[in-house]
Amino acid sequence: MAEGTNKKVVLKSRPVGEPIPDNFELVEGAIPSAGDGQVLVRNQFLSLDPYMRGRMSDAKSYAEPVAIGGVIVGATVGEVIQSNHAGVAIGDTVLGFGGWQEFAALEGDEVQKINPDLAPISTALGVLGMPGMTAYTGLKNIGQPKAGETVVVAAASGAVGSVVGQIARIEGAKAVGIAGSDEKCRFVVDELGFDACINHNAPDFADQLAKACPDGIDVYFENVGGEVFQVVLPLLNDFARIPVCGLIAHYNATELPKGPDMTAVLMRQILVKRLTFRGFIVWDFAEQEAEAKKALAGWIGDGSLKYKEHVSDGLEKAPEAFIDLLKGGNFGKAVVKLT
Amino acid sequence: MAEGTNKKVVLKSRPVGEPIPDNFELVEGAIPSAGDGQVLVRNQFLSLDPYMRGRMSDAKSYAEPVAIGGVIVGATVGEVIQSNHAGVAIGDTVLGFGGWQEFAALEGDEVQKINPDLAPISTALGVLGMPGMTAYTGLKNIGQPKAGETVVVAAASGAVGSVVGQIARIEGAKAVGIAGSDEKCRFVVDELGFDACINHNAPDFADQLAKACPDGIDVYFENVGGEVFQVVLPLLNDFARIPVCGLIAHYNATELPKGPDMTAVLMRQILVKRLTFRGFIVWDFAEQEAEAKKALAGWIGDGSLKYKEHVSDGLEKAPEAFIDLLKGGNFGKAVVKLT
Repeated sequence: MAEGTNKKVVLKSRPVGEPIPDNFELVEGAIPSAGDGQVLVRNQFLSLDPYMRGRMSDAKSYAEPVAIGGVIVGATVGEVIQSNHAGVAIGDTVLGFGGWQEFAALEGDEVQKINPDLAPISTALGVLGMPGMTAYTGLKNIGQPKAGETVVVAAASGAVGSVVGQIARIEGAKAVGIAGSDEKCRFVVDELGFDACINHNAPDFADQLAKACPDGIDVYFENVGGEVFQVVLPLLNDFARIPVCGLIAHYNATELPKGPDMTAVLMRQILVKRLTFRGFIVWDFAEQEAEAKKALAGWIGDGSLKYKEHVSDGLEKAPEAFIDLLKGGNFGKAVVKLT
Repeated sequence: MAEGTNKKVVLKSRPVGEPIPDNFELVEGAIPSAGDGQVLVRNQFLSLDPYMRGRMSDAKSYAEPVAIGGVIVGATVGEVIQSNHAGVAIGDTVLGFGGWQEFAALEGDEVQKINPDLAPISTALGVLGMPGMTAYTGLKNIGQPKAGETVVVAAASGAVGSVVGQIARIEGAKAVGIAGSDEKCRFVVDELGFDACINHNAPDFADQLAKACPDGIDVYFENVGGEVFQVVLPLLNDFARIPVCGLIAHYNATELPKGPDMTAVLMRQILVKRLTFRGFIVWDFAEQEAEAKKALAGWIGDGSLKYKEHVSDGLEKAPEAFIDLLKGGNFGKAVVKLT
């Protein structure tokens, strides 16, 4: 057992609607030891991702909820400081599900070694990690953009959206982003190279989006839902593909939107335009992980794929940074620096 | 020009909600002549299909609406009585889009010869025609039922639904039908061999469907929409596939269902269960026509695929039969016998 204490953030109570600081509690415990086959990791970066909101609820989903009093789940990169696994050495940098805490004892079989010389290690949580793979696999398997087609993605300056649009451009498609501020939109166009980006808070958002997509929309990468989706729906072309990987606009909702029930409109659009909607999570395409990481690293290497991180400093900042993420307050991939 | 008159049913006014007899008008005109490259066909059977309701409206869809005063569109089989096309001879039986009339001048290139010795010619409008192909291509390309999976289809005694369930059985899946009366359900189970069939008018319909699908639903072939869909949705398994080929419950709707807006629920289900919804019309898979017809004819030949027709006698009966079809009053593939 290592000396010192392990700071961790546990779920104090389940959020109703928007999470509030009081749903979280910063506690201290003993630093755990690595059990048989385990490694002890000093977490250096914690990833903050919208899916975590779902884990804080106890509604049925594709994964178990976090228990009250339990450490909130999350991907981490860190340094191995103790090892009972032959394949992992002290000093290795590893990616794992260390959670919202400073130290984690993880199964040696369930961590992945990261080469810190290839790229900043935090990218293993973003462009070279789950968000990057989500963008890659969702486009490759479901979106399937062709040269000349129009790809639209919301949260375009975020961890997933920024990669979606850039891959679309690499594939020869037109990339139109949607983001929550003019500053984000400028970054998306000027730095990431999207063809256009529309601020969804603009009063004429729908008109602007239609003008930015004069040939309609062939792929809408859905990570937001809500009102943005309702604006996109009438612009979809026949045979459009809609990978559904997130619905951040819904996560804090405590009641359904008022009527009428637009399900009938959606189903009719699916029928008459022959749309494909397909939900996925990145692990559905786990077998493509090596391929995805190789492609993403290649594009970073040749300068065709850029990324931006939104770094909060210290574990105690995690709840506030997460609450902000759900409101779109981040600008780039949200991570927390722990050491 | 042939002698005599051509009876035809034209669209007198666009239906608002349910079509009524006064939306249709039976008129007489001259029998047309076959122009260059055309054939003149004496229609023997007219197909009645739910999609026709869409053509009577002027809402944007995948096909042009019927003009006011125009002959209502529809597939027909009939005998060629005049030919200006080298590939088609007088006396041939052909399938074409002859519409709601007794005689039609059709492009010789756009009719298909039918062998009247293989099966009753009316089957070219049903099990061996567009409805059969819709079932076949929707299952093959989108539903993709695997042995042991559960396939649910509504309008199970109808032209498409009856074929969907029987193909599912042939593929080794479990077939559960939904129909509008106990009599239809008995036919679906006893004659068509479905594993179960539930009457959607039963007060405990949702409970009965859940009991008939103890392992959930892997494929829901959507041709109905509305309340049936809302009952099916919570029973869908992870990775379920939903081919969307029709929404007959919506076609007569004049306003959207009252709220709340359940779109958010549907999108969440798509995400967390990783569902695939894909709309299609049979012509999207036109290149599979020969394959589909061969397979369907083979199954009819070996007794594994059965069909039932609901025949109305005389063109003047077509409006009433069509109005009835939209209410589920038919029992089997709806056709009108014209001669």
